Amino acid sequence: MNTEIISVGTELMTGSILNTNTQYLSKRLSELGFRVHNQTAVGDNRERLEKALNAALGNNDLIILTGGLGPTQDDLTKEAVAEALGRELYLDKGLEKNLRSFFKEHGIPFTDNNLKQAYLIEGSKALDNPDGTAPGIVVRSEDKAVFLLPGPPREMRNVFENEVVPILNELRSEEISSRYYQLTGIGESQAEDRIME
Amino acid sequence: MNTEIISVGTELMTGSILNTNTQYLSKRLSELGFRVHNQTAVGDNRERLEKALNAALGNNDLIILTGGLGPTQDDLTKEAVAEALGRELYLDKGLEKNLRSFFKEHGIPFTDNNLKQAYLIEGSKALDNPDGTAPGIVVRSEDKAVFLLPGPPREMRNVFENEVVPILNELRSEEISSRYYQLTGIGESQAEDRIME
Repeated sequence: MNTEIISVGTELMTGSILNTNTQYLSKRLSELGFRVHNQTAVGDNRERLEKALNAALGNNDLIILTGGLGPTQDDLTKEAVAEALGRELYLDKGLEKNLRSFFKEHGIPFTDNNLKQAYLIEGSKALDNPDGTAPGIVVRSEDKAVFLLPGPPREMRNVFENEVVPILNELRSEEISSRYYQLTGIGESQAEDRIME
Repeated sequence: MNTEIISVGTELMTGSILNTNTQYLSKRLSELGFRVHNQTAVGDNRERLEKALNAALGNNDLIILTGGLGPTQDDLTKEAVAEALGRELYLDKGLEKNLRSFFKEHGIPFTDNNLKQAYLIEGSKALDNPDGTAPGIVVRSEDKAVFLLPGPPREMRNVFENEVVPILNELRSEEISSRYYQLTGIGESQAEDRIME
């Protein structure tokens, strides 16, 4: 599957942080057999993020976003993906419960903006993030798969390895099974010559 | 000026190298007063590079590319920029002479594919790269400025600091001078209120 990685965060645009997430994901995705064709990064800006998303959905089948899943107003990734896919957001009662428990256990006061992290995109699935409050998300649309991962590298890596890789293995086997052809009448060198391009 | 950084190299797509050039340039450009809005990376693939370039030219005024300036067939940045701007490439006799001297001095046999590095884009200017054989290039088109820098980080940094920064300072002063307005009849708070958006 042709793949694009989109990193979201103004701190990348100012060079305040080095984008190690993109290298990590590119290396792992290549190892897993996915072709990374585009790497993109934009700041916490909804218009530019939606533009990047629409381009990515036009060019690639697998899109992995990192960052912009936090509780504050400048965290826009979920909203932008919902918009680009024409889906609504809804408050997931299970996620809300987990979130409130997390705050209680850690003795942190629960302000209302935190509820933002309990919203899911219609038809999506939450991906467990035991190290943070923002879960990952996977959403499929036609033949496209879009993953939203938290930006902090440790959270990103754990969600990727534990939650994303098993789904990618399924996607890859779908893809591989769709590419078996039975040839008859010509040998493999002739076949290669004809289909090379 | 709204700015995009485009990195070119398949080694970025496979995660074999970390994209430190983009962080370096983003930090320096921010310090110099430029707004980095998009960071993009593509492999050594002409179609995807031209697509990225066309998007960048549509969205931003200053575009800085790194990588893909070497002598081999997979180095495509110059060709892609020429195509995107509708310009021709031509063999620059001065660059050819420098290049042949460089090889002679270093006792390296000069194979013909190296001539590729002596080509310039119509209307562009070469930027001195004393650490390598591929010069940087700057080309202006209407109100856009496009810089092509070598990919190896040391070469990129030296060309940027010694050759690019002085040109950016000129561009910035053009921009600043075009933004002076003389206001009369209203105070600054009213003016801000009216032009805020």
